[in-house]
Amino acid sequence: MAADAATISRALVEQIVREAVTRRLGEDRATPSSRTNDLVVHASARHMHLCRTDLDVLFGPGHELTPDKDLYQEGNYAAAETVTLLGPRRRPLPNVRVLGPLRKESQVELAFTDAIHLGIDAPVRLSGNIEGTPGAIVIGPKGIVEMRRGVIRAAIHVHMSPAEAAGYGVKQGDLMKLRVLGPSPAVFEQVIVRVDPASRLNVHMDTDEANACALHMATGFELFK
Amino acid sequence: MAADAATISRALVEQIVREAVTRRLGEDRATPSSRTNDLVVHASARHMHLCRTDLDVLFGPGHELTPDKDLYQEGNYAAAETVTLLGPRRRPLPNVRVLGPLRKESQVELAFTDAIHLGIDAPVRLSGNIEGTPGAIVIGPKGIVEMRRGVIRAAIHVHMSPAEAAGYGVKQGDLMKLRVLGPSPAVFEQVIVRVDPASRLNVHMDTDEANACALHMATGFELFK
Repeated sequence: MAADAATISRALVEQIVREAVTRRLGEDRATPSSRTNDLVVHASARHMHLCRTDLDVLFGPGHELTPDKDLYQEGNYAAAETVTLLGPRRRPLPNVRVLGPLRKESQVELAFTDAIHLGIDAPVRLSGNIEGTPGAIVIGPKGIVEMRRGVIRAAIHVHMSPAEAAGYGVKQGDLMKLRVLGPSPAVFEQVIVRVDPASRLNVHMDTDEANACALHMATGFELFK
Repeated sequence: MAADAATISRALVEQIVREAVTRRLGEDRATPSSRTNDLVVHASARHMHLCRTDLDVLFGPGHELTPDKDLYQEGNYAAAETVTLLGPRRRPLPNVRVLGPLRKESQVELAFTDAIHLGIDAPVRLSGNIEGTPGAIVIGPKGIVEMRRGVIRAAIHVHMSPAEAAGYGVKQGDLMKLRVLGPSPAVFEQVIVRVDPASRLNVHMDTDEANACALHMATGFELFK
């Protein structure tokens, strides 16, 4: 079908979209996860961790985070609070979820897709290792914070308990490989091992990695040395 | 620094961004490419191919594409023309580049990031294989087209000449593996071989795959069976 562009109203476009594109929509795939072979693999969408000082500035003095959804690793949660990020390109990145609990220093974890949108050259780092990383502007409902550092792409990693580490024959900081089977099969060759007594076996990748390997359609995983 | 959100003007935000975020900006990374070990790997940003009928509707009867930039594969070019895509989520995806020359049937090639933005459940297909794929709304300066099919994630593939195929011991349609070395090392385990006398050795991946393996920081490639 064709129509003069000048005559295309919003209502027409909406009608066309409703009528024409009728395929089934999957659930929100922004944070897909898959469990196969007893291995749980999560995609972490862009998010940030806040320190007490920055929380006060962004959401008001004494504000406490509102836990909205427990994460797979015990004690961690997605908060109801979100912020907007700004970088050199001056294109805002809204609805960036705050994760709790609070940390000693604020940190932003982005996929490269997000970093490119902002114009920030994010390095690949393990969470918490933010020496020499770039900053960003964080906008909250009560104020804004200029982060001088802390914007990273979180390196793909696997959480596990000491017993699970012993089972794999690995220790804290070792590197493993993760094979993702499915329509876009791939092996991530540098998956950092993080061992903690409170941890459950769980791989964290970002949304670019999840999209690259079609995580939402994955048919199996292999984690190996 | 802190300020009352109600007092944050656009000018202030722009000033803050200019002053505070001073790190070096890389070149546009939307379509990175890297050459190492004589293997050229390109990231294909979202784009579309048009048939004669759809070009007429979108850009006017008899319109001819304006070659803007030659692509690495001889005879192919990025045109000056762009379109806007719409899907069920009714969030437009603007500035989708048209590639030439024209084809028998229109086709849209998206990364999953783009498909999720539109709300389209794109399957992984080799270019040209669009039986049973979803459609989209395409908006051009002169009209709109309702594509009933043709939206895909293009499967990662490698173009090569018959001589290069013989050198690797592969033939049309075979699968190879591509290892990308660097800060986010990964192996793509199903790289489809496309052999053509006019082809030059060249891997095409999409932007999700490029971001997952940090293609813009890649230090080496290995293509193997």
